[in-house]
Amino acid sequence: MLYKTTTMNTSDNKNEIFPLGEKAGADYFTGNAWVKYLITADDMFNTSVGNVVFEAGARNNWHTHPGGQILIVIDGVGYYQEKGKPIQVIKKGDVVQIYPDVVHWHGASPDSTMTHIAINTHTEKGVVDWLGPVSDEEYNSK
Amino acid sequence: MLYKTTTMNTSDNKNEIFPLGEKAGADYFTGNAWVKYLITADDMFNTSVGNVVFEAGARNNWHTHPGGQILIVIDGVGYYQEKGKPIQVIKKGDVVQIYPDVVHWHGASPDSTMTHIAINTHTEKGVVDWLGPVSDEEYNSK
Repeated sequence: MLYKTTTMNTSDNKNEIFPLGEKAGADYFTGNAWVKYLITADDMFNTSVGNVVFEAGARNNWHTHPGGQILIVIDGVGYYQEKGKPIQVIKKGDVVQIYPDVVHWHGASPDSTMTHIAINTHTEKGVVDWLGPVSDEEYNSK
Repeated sequence: MLYKTTTMNTSDNKNEIFPLGEKAGADYFTGNAWVKYLITADDMFNTSVGNVVFEAGARNNWHTHPGGQILIVIDGVGYYQEKGKPIQVIKKGDVVQIYPDVVHWHGASPDSTMTHIAINTHTEKGVVDWLGPVSDEEYNSK
């Protein structure tokens, strides 16, 4: 089954692969981010895929994935942190494999946007459990 | 777990997201293609991820995925065909969801390279079963 994404034609994003999608909700994100849903999970695949664009400084809340998640960074420079560990810098071409129930967050770095594809695996176990925001102190600890 | 891909610095691919990876085997491909493995399947995720670059005219053999596959086209213009249906043109930003056991092939179009990320789902059921090559007559039926 072939899904065509709508092509955007603004001068700002002519090199982007996907349209921006929907604004990410302020309940679970700090700063501006956009989510383009690409594949919805079903009982055959148990996998969902989306593309997320974070503006510089933007990040999601601390959270876990009951079924795990794989991130593929396709543009920019961002941050990834697992609870109790230092922030890791992630950039275009990097891949992050997040095991089930690992408390973590991801987002852009302070001076660059970051875009990643997010693959949620084993969605029959659940997709995401949101926790509290990443404070400025936590974000600036890099 | 963070995986850094090796950055290539040749003038030919400075806009690419991933390194080319390994040359795809002639047993299952017609023409030149390269596969960069990004995530290896394990019992926790049952998901593998790779990036495939097809030169213009290159394509893989007819094949099936016992656990299904999702393709995300990140560059160029290519072809996707399911057995008994017409060739469909796929391009940057398109996503293809291939159900288990659907006989199909994918590759570049005659005049453009095509690059896609390939996500193999439910790999515990098997990854790929290869069939015969896509003949020039089949490839040129578009």
